[in-house]
Amino acid sequence: MLRTHTCGELRIEDVNKEVKLSGWVQRIRDKGGLIWIDLRDRYGITQLLLEEGRSADELVKTARTLGREFVLQATGKVIERVSKNPKMPTGDIEIDLTELNILNASQTPPFTIEDNTDGGEELRMKYRYLDLRRNPLRKNMELRHQVSLETRKYLDSQGFIDIETPYLIKSTPEGARDFVVPSRMHQGEFYALPQSPQTFKQLLMVAGYDRYFQLVKCFRDEDLRADRQPEFTQIDCEMAFVEQQDILNTFEGLVRYLFKEIKGVNIEKLPHITYAEAMQKYGSDKPDMRFGMEFVELNDVTQGKGFKVFDDAQLVVGIKAEGCANYSRKQLDKLTDFVRRPQVGANGLIYVKYNEDGTFKSSVDKFFSQEDLKVWANKFDARAGDLILVMAGETDKTRKQLSELRLEMGEQLNLRNPNVFVPLWVVDFPLLEWNEETNRYHAMHHPFTSPKPEHEHLLDTDPGKVNANAYDLVINGVEIGGGSIRIHNRELQKKMFQVLGFTDEEAQEQFGFLMNAFEYGAPPHGGIALGFDRLVALFAGQDSIRDFIAFPKNNAGRDVMIDSPSVIADEQLKELGLKVDIKNPS
Amino acid sequence: MLRTHTCGELRIEDVNKEVKLSGWVQRIRDKGGLIWIDLRDRYGITQLLLEEGRSADELVKTARTLGREFVLQATGKVIERVSKNPKMPTGDIEIDLTELNILNASQTPPFTIEDNTDGGEELRMKYRYLDLRRNPLRKNMELRHQVSLETRKYLDSQGFIDIETPYLIKSTPEGARDFVVPSRMHQGEFYALPQSPQTFKQLLMVAGYDRYFQLVKCFRDEDLRADRQPEFTQIDCEMAFVEQQDILNTFEGLVRYLFKEIKGVNIEKLPHITYAEAMQKYGSDKPDMRFGMEFVELNDVTQGKGFKVFDDAQLVVGIKAEGCANYSRKQLDKLTDFVRRPQVGANGLIYVKYNEDGTFKSSVDKFFSQEDLKVWANKFDARAGDLILVMAGETDKTRKQLSELRLEMGEQLNLRNPNVFVPLWVVDFPLLEWNEETNRYHAMHHPFTSPKPEHEHLLDTDPGKVNANAYDLVINGVEIGGGSIRIHNRELQKKMFQVLGFTDEEAQEQFGFLMNAFEYGAPPHGGIALGFDRLVALFAGQDSIRDFIAFPKNNAGRDVMIDSPSVIADEQLKELGLKVDIKNPS
Repeated sequence: MLRTHTCGELRIEDVNKEVKLSGWVQRIRDKGGLIWIDLRDRYGITQLLLEEGRSADELVKTARTLGREFVLQATGKVIERVSKNPKMPTGDIEIDLTELNILNASQTPPFTIEDNTDGGEELRMKYRYLDLRRNPLRKNMELRHQVSLETRKYLDSQGFIDIETPYLIKSTPEGARDFVVPSRMHQGEFYALPQSPQTFKQLLMVAGYDRYFQLVKCFRDEDLRADRQPEFTQIDCEMAFVEQQDILNTFEGLVRYLFKEIKGVNIEKLPHITYAEAMQKYGSDKPDMRFGMEFVELNDVTQGKGFKVFDDAQLVVGIKAEGCANYSRKQLDKLTDFVRRPQVGANGLIYVKYNEDGTFKSSVDKFFSQEDLKVWANKFDARAGDLILVMAGETDKTRKQLSELRLEMGEQLNLRNPNVFVPLWVVDFPLLEWNEETNRYHAMHHPFTSPKPEHEHLLDTDPGKVNANAYDLVINGVEIGGGSIRIHNRELQKKMFQVLGFTDEEAQEQFGFLMNAFEYGAPPHGGIALGFDRLVALFAGQDSIRDFIAFPKNNAGRDVMIDSPSVIADEQLKELGLKVDIKNPS
Repeated sequence: MLRTHTCGELRIEDVNKEVKLSGWVQRIRDKGGLIWIDLRDRYGITQLLLEEGRSADELVKTARTLGREFVLQATGKVIERVSKNPKMPTGDIEIDLTELNILNASQTPPFTIEDNTDGGEELRMKYRYLDLRRNPLRKNMELRHQVSLETRKYLDSQGFIDIETPYLIKSTPEGARDFVVPSRMHQGEFYALPQSPQTFKQLLMVAGYDRYFQLVKCFRDEDLRADRQPEFTQIDCEMAFVEQQDILNTFEGLVRYLFKEIKGVNIEKLPHITYAEAMQKYGSDKPDMRFGMEFVELNDVTQGKGFKVFDDAQLVVGIKAEGCANYSRKQLDKLTDFVRRPQVGANGLIYVKYNEDGTFKSSVDKFFSQEDLKVWANKFDARAGDLILVMAGETDKTRKQLSELRLEMGEQLNLRNPNVFVPLWVVDFPLLEWNEETNRYHAMHHPFTSPKPEHEHLLDTDPGKVNANAYDLVINGVEIGGGSIRIHNRELQKKMFQVLGFTDEEAQEQFGFLMNAFEYGAPPHGGIALGFDRLVALFAGQDSIRDFIAFPKNNAGRDVMIDSPSVIADEQLKELGLKVDIKNPS
């Protein structure tokens, strides 16, 4: 070993020990006679000391050639510091250097290796190996490791076994776009990278493995939105001989275990909320329940008073922002601008201030009397000092818009503390959703999700009304995972593909292996997949997953560090039986 | 839960309990008034009992409709068996059925779900989900899970952190052939799937993570030989601030830990053998050291006696098969046939029998006297009853051929017991090997392996003489893993690429990111990668990895179950800017 200790472990008890450390130069202070070098590794920082006159001249000379991020091997004796630094775990001691070995030099890094760096996004992506040296990223990677290991321990303790499913599978048109892999041995044919191991984990249930898990990379060739990655990691699980509640209990157990082990936080029993209720109360199927601010529907008290916006609306609905009656005109205008942004897309926003003196001031005073507004206020259980914000229009759209406003108000009122965690289950999702573009039903979850048995008869007559045994795990307004009880019966699966517009031939060609498997004793089964990148980010109280992935792609799907994707040799194309054939981009 | 217990856990203490089991029908015996059903799940088999007259008529009727592999939910009372089966963990009890629920029917499976099945290879691959129900495969998957978990635990305990590296990387021409992934967002450009995370793990060392591991899928588009898979799993590790011996110690620790935890076997300190010694003594860089049978070189005592085969040979070398002097003419002919097979490629084999009566009988009696043969025998420390087998020719070839014969003799003499484990380190590999086809040096390990510092000066003058700080972990004649101390200096890396025939531009284009990283404080580092599939197979005492992978490809790289690779839609090709362009196969 090129060290006897790490840079994070020496303490006052170690004084007088001869030690050897290895690490990077964090900084150097050269105060005339005294030179201090902060040496950094993954475990911490230790201060090295040189004293002109006392330390060997060679050493001092060498030290003065050092720059930031040089790699050193430092030998010396642990001594007590004259001026201690209580903020550093190693702050009581320093190393009186007797030997200094430059293991490697370094150019000046293009940005500072500090918690708050001066490097911009693209530069840090290009020199990711330097960005990863910074504490915040190092902690993220360590956290990720810890969550991975604890997840495995828990699932193992529950009898789950880790089974690897293949990466070179088959392209299917359902779902997102596949990345494909041309075959050289079978020219003109392609493998696909898995969007998830869905069908394989179901086959493992057919194979009798009854509790499967895997932390597995998944791939989606989507036009990247902010914070989407073409490759991402999933905690993928499946169980047989279970009902929905068994799966919820098992993974509620995982969530509780992780919060306890990783964050030291005790999580109460997870609330269940139906999809319908979530949409009605929060306008979202992933409600942030760190705060209330539930929707109140106002149709009965707002319509028929001559205000056309309300009278024409399918839904009039509002939220109450406690203690915000003192919002200024400017603040209210800003909220209106917020809901009018294209990302939200509302026409406008109505407010009612419940003034401290008991009077009301609203943007619709022309149409509604103080008594009318008092009735609204009662619906909200509002008190003097509160602000009521109301939107109106087509039901689904209005709910979504008000949901955005609710989250914004939660932000403004500091109700979304990243160190508070409120997980919940959203259940009873619809099986299908109508797609206007393709003019057919799409699976809301995926085509393998089972309808609720009591709704199965509606598949022929009113498919949109069918609910599924499907559930999402939502934490702090983020969908962390989702799953369902699957279909395990060939006929029902066939029917499902019919409802989704597959011909029997298409269904057989693409998913015949699964439907065949259902004929050989498929047990009832179901499962869940959790977004691992997002779960780790959540534990760290952060929204973006990018800094929880060691080597992410940028928003254009490029790895700017290694410069990929890139052109390949003609010889490779020829071997694959392929020709690049780019049309002028239209 | 659709069960209260598994089919493997009920014992005599559970008698009188009301239980619910779920599982598959293993077999049914209908002996007039009594019906027994063996119900199987992942955990075992439990016997269900029905008695005509006593059990409800409905139950008996239902039971008589069942077939093999039907999925049942069985409710009843645990009772003591009249005739116990001490071979089964549940053999003391059976379930007196009160309810029987068919969860799913099954067609008759195309082969029997038994330890020894009647199904052929292709059929079992096609119905892999049924093959996976068989005990031997189930045990393999459970073993794999266990090895994975224990590996993670050990590495975590040693301060390694699990960091995921990307799957969509960049194609490089060095090494085996890449699988490539066309980019839709950057038409005409491709990602490549990693053959290993080599450069990324080195960048993690540059980034200061000092102990990295990952169980990771790797991909190689090779013409598949038996027991090669296009995707396989690696235990991939890297350490910084270490020397070779530190890495050997750490992974020797892993090997010992795994043998102890998984097999209950204590492994002694691993012997080290140099590449040169391994080649000289065993003709192989992965010697099976469960048995001796070391090579003895005979040039000095065999040449110059007028036997042209020996006189013309660069090397005359033999092994001693103890107690085999009684081999018949037929057996000896078979050995000669063995070495003449194209896979071995020798011209012939000379034998010397050391008869029980002290005389010698050889196939070269014409050229060598009894005294000559006595001298040979002394070289081998041979005793009466032993057989000496000798080969001659060009050194490297002859060694390889004799190595095959040595393994064959080990097999014949039962010296290769799959339950005996002899791991060792092979060290001091050459850095380079000359490739006749490309007429240049290739890296024996890979281009990032460092030459031994004392040999560095030979890179310009005599590259073939340079040894590397490279090592292989060999167990029972199988190369389980290999690694090296890496180059961490830009200039040396550049020189290495030159020696390998790269222009500076090519080196910069393909590996510039790594060489650049070396300029920003790269620490000394090295690592190892172990073949996970092969390690698990070895623990189970088996040679083939296929049954340790849940869903393997066949020898043509096809997944015959899902029928992949397959053609993709024209629309997909168009989006990727590609055209299939298959020339008539020549």
